[in-house]
Amino acid sequence: MNKDIFVKLLQQRQFKAVRSILDVMNEVDIASLLSDLNDRELALAFRLIPKDKAAEVFSNMETSMQTYLVEIFSEKELKELLDDLYMDDTVDLLEELPANLVKRILDTVSASDRSLINQLLNHPEDSAGSIMTTEYVDIRETMTVAESMAHIKQTGIHKETIYTCYVTDKRKLLGIVSAKDLMTSDDDLLIRDLMETEIISVNTHTDQEAVAQLFTKYDLLALPVLDQDSYMVGIVTFDDAMDVMVEEATEDITKMAAMSPNEKTYFETSIFDHARHRIIWLLILMFSATVTGTIITKYEDAFAAIPLLVAFIPMLMDTGGNCGSQSSTLIIRGIALNEIRFQDLFRVIFKEFGVSLIVGVVLALANGARILLMYHDISLALVIGLSLIGTAILAKLIGCVLPLFAKRIGLDPAIMASPLITTLVDTCSILIYFNIATMLFKL
Amino acid sequence: MNKDIFVKLLQQRQFKAVRSILDVMNEVDIASLLSDLNDRELALAFRLIPKDKAAEVFSNMETSMQTYLVEIFSEKELKELLDDLYMDDTVDLLEELPANLVKRILDTVSASDRSLINQLLNHPEDSAGSIMTTEYVDIRETMTVAESMAHIKQTGIHKETIYTCYVTDKRKLLGIVSAKDLMTSDDDLLIRDLMETEIISVNTHTDQEAVAQLFTKYDLLALPVLDQDSYMVGIVTFDDAMDVMVEEATEDITKMAAMSPNEKTYFETSIFDHARHRIIWLLILMFSATVTGTIITKYEDAFAAIPLLVAFIPMLMDTGGNCGSQSSTLIIRGIALNEIRFQDLFRVIFKEFGVSLIVGVVLALANGARILLMYHDISLALVIGLSLIGTAILAKLIGCVLPLFAKRIGLDPAIMASPLITTLVDTCSILIYFNIATMLFKL
Repeated sequence: MNKDIFVKLLQQRQFKAVRSILDVMNEVDIASLLSDLNDRELALAFRLIPKDKAAEVFSNMETSMQTYLVEIFSEKELKELLDDLYMDDTVDLLEELPANLVKRILDTVSASDRSLINQLLNHPEDSAGSIMTTEYVDIRETMTVAESMAHIKQTGIHKETIYTCYVTDKRKLLGIVSAKDLMTSDDDLLIRDLMETEIISVNTHTDQEAVAQLFTKYDLLALPVLDQDSYMVGIVTFDDAMDVMVEEATEDITKMAAMSPNEKTYFETSIFDHARHRIIWLLILMFSATVTGTIITKYEDAFAAIPLLVAFIPMLMDTGGNCGSQSSTLIIRGIALNEIRFQDLFRVIFKEFGVSLIVGVVLALANGARILLMYHDISLALVIGLSLIGTAILAKLIGCVLPLFAKRIGLDPAIMASPLITTLVDTCSILIYFNIATMLFKL
Repeated sequence: MNKDIFVKLLQQRQFKAVRSILDVMNEVDIASLLSDLNDRELALAFRLIPKDKAAEVFSNMETSMQTYLVEIFSEKELKELLDDLYMDDTVDLLEELPANLVKRILDTVSASDRSLINQLLNHPEDSAGSIMTTEYVDIRETMTVAESMAHIKQTGIHKETIYTCYVTDKRKLLGIVSAKDLMTSDDDLLIRDLMETEIISVNTHTDQEAVAQLFTKYDLLALPVLDQDSYMVGIVTFDDAMDVMVEEATEDITKMAAMSPNEKTYFETSIFDHARHRIIWLLILMFSATVTGTIITKYEDAFAAIPLLVAFIPMLMDTGGNCGSQSSTLIIRGIALNEIRFQDLFRVIFKEFGVSLIVGVVLALANGARILLMYHDISLALVIGLSLIGTAILAKLIGCVLPLFAKRIGLDPAIMASPLITTLVDTCSILIYFNIATMLFKL
């Protein structure tokens, strides 16, 4: 749908046409179409959305637009919206709204919903409890397939997913039945005989990244969430798990480039906030790098005697940094995907040592040959070649060991990425280089 | 389940106990349990898996184990397995097997399956066609809800997902009905009146990354795949889309650390293959970095006069590299998530210019103050401060512009990440630094 045409139709108050357009469009696309409207147009357009789509369009809109709509809605409109919103979307909304609007919403919902919302708002950020929804299909083990289907027909329409049904007894989870099993089984089979009793579940405090990993590992559609006393309190659905996966990958990538993670998109973040997220690590790394500078001054005599030595500093530093960040990146990603654990430390070191030996020798031969051709100086070729091999080995060892130790002591391995590794490796490569040079050139 | 105990039970031929263990375990966990067995134990254990779980366990196993089993299976065992495997898993298997086993499998399946498999094998790698399955629930618009449910009960058990039903007429896709709609609607409602006709679909040639993005954007469970003539040929299911998301994020992260992407895990890859994936970029970057070295030799007189100048080279190079990779990382991730497009070039440049100005000034003040305190040299503080500001601005501009141009000319933006940006920025920062120094110190 062309946005200009849509805005024109709105301005010309051609409401019938607007309504037919909204009627055929998908909720996600409507939300993105509305994002370009001004406040007055937004209020107008939102009220023209078919009632059965309004809540889902709303939950797909940006926070600023949601805030505006909650502000201008009448009591009745707000109540209608909240009735149709899933519980997890309502909680997401409340987490973003200013306090006066939060109060307005809590005054509008029923007392039981209010206590539920307050409970959900108290779950730690990024925990299973904070992304779960409390609406799920709940059946008894004594029901038949036909009775369960009838139960779903009555109650299912307001549940976020009905494709996994939970067999409970006094809020204790006994088993799981998929809608597929219900739809393909005999009507009078008992749920007790159909249900799966090996259940994969999480706790309200489980980290959302661990939750998402269970979804990919077991190809789940939904995952039950239990409280501390093993009572079932909600489910996480696959769409929220997919969002978490994308969010967590972005967070890792951001940290790996020495920035503080940020939940907003690039353009949503102001210039000042961008600067704030980037400056801390830049300062830390800048001052760490001065150590390398201080070491260089110790070898002033060496490069006063052979000024050419200075020319190889950037090449050695960059190559060391690249070798180190290759290793750290692979290890960080492996840890994130649960493929590498701390117990694998020695396997990793062995592997990286082998790789660094091959890589170091190839780099040394290539650069040594170049130096021989350009400067006809065997000693120089030898100094650079040996320095490259030493740097490659050290860089890869630092690069693979640090993320594993970070994980071990409870830090996020992602901070042990390229920038920090590069700074550490710089110091080492300069030391290796000048020591080899001083020895071979007898400086 | 403890692996040692399991192996012991197998060796003691306590098959009844082994069978009960396998009976309660999840398919994914069984596959991982089997991965530690030797060939003989594997063959034994696999034959003890309950028949209704065997195919799913098989599709979760590593290729080497699958290959071994296909080799030793009898005709009858192979046929049973292939009957239970979903079509997309069969095709995945064939893509990995050696030619003689591929022939064995193609000889075992029915003629119609064989022609279908051959067709699927021909879809380009990483396309929607290569990850789709051909088994989906197919209904007619003239059916009622009750008739559709009866149809699913008959045929659904062999379909990978029955939660989205496709309304077709002579293989043309007319609409979509979710199982939720079927389960919560009146029995005699016509499918024609229930189906959704605004359909999100992809083509067999659509890239798998674009497919995965549609799943997250629209929270889909399955996505229909059409051929060139708009006939429906299959569906992609959400579990495969989740795998693609993880795979693509890993590929981007690997490329961003100057390595060739690799579909195997860290430990599955041999030392030699690891070295091969890393050496090409290391060589390219090493030789590019010599440019910076060559530039340094041009300013030999400057650092012969003031040797202290050399000490600041690592700090300037690292800071420039870090500034540049922060920007390039954000832009690369933004492009991957479809949040930043080439048309945003000037908005991005404007933003990064603002950020680099703030960041540059803060870095300059911090380091300038340090130099004043340590060396009591205002000129030196000024040289370093100005160089830092110039480097920050240039680094951030290079870092944000290159990924966008890479995207524009059809390259993967991920290669314009930290390592390449660092090498480019090095040259610029050295030039800025020595030019400012020569001017201010009148060298």
